[in-house]
Amino acid sequence: MHPVSLDSFTKKYKTLVEERLREAVSALETPENLAKAMLYSLEAGGKRIRPLLVFAVIDAFGKDPQDGLDAAAAIEMVHTYSLIHDDLPSMDDDDLRRGKPTNHKVFGEATAILAGDALLTLSFNLLTEIPEDSIPANIKLALIKGLSAAAGAPGMVGGQVADMEGENKKLTLEQLEYIHINKTGKLLEYSIIAGAEVAGATAEQKEVLSKFAYHIGLAFQIRDDILDLEGTEEMIGKPVGSDTANEKSTYPALLGLAGAKDALDSHLLSAKDSLAQSGLEVGILDQITDLIGLRNN
Amino acid sequence: MHPVSLDSFTKKYKTLVEERLREAVSALETPENLAKAMLYSLEAGGKRIRPLLVFAVIDAFGKDPQDGLDAAAAIEMVHTYSLIHDDLPSMDDDDLRRGKPTNHKVFGEATAILAGDALLTLSFNLLTEIPEDSIPANIKLALIKGLSAAAGAPGMVGGQVADMEGENKKLTLEQLEYIHINKTGKLLEYSIIAGAEVAGATAEQKEVLSKFAYHIGLAFQIRDDILDLEGTEEMIGKPVGSDTANEKSTYPALLGLAGAKDALDSHLLSAKDSLAQSGLEVGILDQITDLIGLRNN
Repeated sequence: MHPVSLDSFTKKYKTLVEERLREAVSALETPENLAKAMLYSLEAGGKRIRPLLVFAVIDAFGKDPQDGLDAAAAIEMVHTYSLIHDDLPSMDDDDLRRGKPTNHKVFGEATAILAGDALLTLSFNLLTEIPEDSIPANIKLALIKGLSAAAGAPGMVGGQVADMEGENKKLTLEQLEYIHINKTGKLLEYSIIAGAEVAGATAEQKEVLSKFAYHIGLAFQIRDDILDLEGTEEMIGKPVGSDTANEKSTYPALLGLAGAKDALDSHLLSAKDSLAQSGLEVGILDQITDLIGLRNN
Repeated sequence: MHPVSLDSFTKKYKTLVEERLREAVSALETPENLAKAMLYSLEAGGKRIRPLLVFAVIDAFGKDPQDGLDAAAAIEMVHTYSLIHDDLPSMDDDDLRRGKPTNHKVFGEATAILAGDALLTLSFNLLTEIPEDSIPANIKLALIKGLSAAAGAPGMVGGQVADMEGENKKLTLEQLEYIHINKTGKLLEYSIIAGAEVAGATAEQKEVLSKFAYHIGLAFQIRDDILDLEGTEEMIGKPVGSDTANEKSTYPALLGLAGAKDALDSHLLSAKDSLAQSGLEVGILDQITDLIGLRNN
């Protein structure tokens, strides 16, 4: 295991992926205002957890994380498009995201919808543009297939619809998990599988990493729900207790706060178990798992 | 040249692509209401001109048009998503499309946005799912690359933004052509190139077909503008003269009605010239070109 700190790893690859995102949009021949709207949300900050997972998985295989740069950028575009559309007046109607006005507040609703559409479309284009000598055609196709499945009706978009349908209803734990597995889990899982594809993982390695992905995806969401109760407004970027105020079904609401914390610990432990089983150099992935357990925002 | 009538060709392949669209959505594991919203707009009718172009080009190479079924279905999904988003209250705010209530009128704005997102995403997934023995990986990648370029910021989405920005402004002919080439032209052009890719066209053949595509794309739009003045409400599915009422820049407004008709004839002639130069069996393509010149809706 090579002793790289998560901090220096994060700093290096966050910079790289942010540069790639800027480059990809700047290279487009398109109306200036559309490019501006796309960049506005891409550059609004965030932890870039999905790109980091791509890079960390490739690192775990002892390969050069930079091989996953386009895959990482494509995933971040899809994540960003989903935030722009989720914030729209007809959806969550949010005025702020990470302390900044949301896309439609700055550019208007029509341009925000189109900026989201353009980012989603560009993500697939980016994957087709990867040079053949760096990633072969069949792996590129696997990346596009995985991203389109994770992002679409059987994944993220389906989860968002289920989430809207569940508003102001008391959900079962099963229904709540369906929403989270699809709305946020599948794109997180895909980030890990994309790294594995780029690194040339075997089917067995991908299976172990899928388990890891499943558990950190749910851990991520449970921690989010707990933070809504225990965090500060500064930490989470929105008023504390807004889920309760909005009568949202959450893990603490269903399991109690102590029960939710137990579930979090159990998913983190299972995630770490999967990593240990993988036989890979999982130093960075292990630290990311710890970070998800402790994250403040 | 084999003597197939456009009518029987259209009937056969329209049915096939409509079946494929239904199958692809029905196979999704996704909330019922999302699948319903996707199908509602896919099944709202329409001439399926883009799929027909895919099939007709493959036919011109003497190959089996059915080889292009998934490419044709993917393009129709992208076209349908663009109509759903264009009709939204924040965009064109249309209540009716082809005489039926628009998607957001039936399913609500949030679901309509998500149904559009899901159709766009599914289009790329569909192209990755084509069996390897029917289309090789590098052609599938070329199809995805072309579709994502035609549909995105450097194509359809960019054209829609330019169209919105041009509202209530007097545009130059150059600005008007930028809008049409991007908003509708690039996806029409891609339909033709997709057929050529599937049929294994050479670079030279693709170039001639691109010219054909360019001219029928503009002819299509000019005819649309002329119909707005000369059609009946029944023919065009919206009030006659609505472009004039909305102070939209159109070809007749810029060139006069006679000038617009001259431009239409000139593009149709150039389209037919390109077909003649191609050396292909262009019977069906020739008939489609005539249809675009004469079309009533």
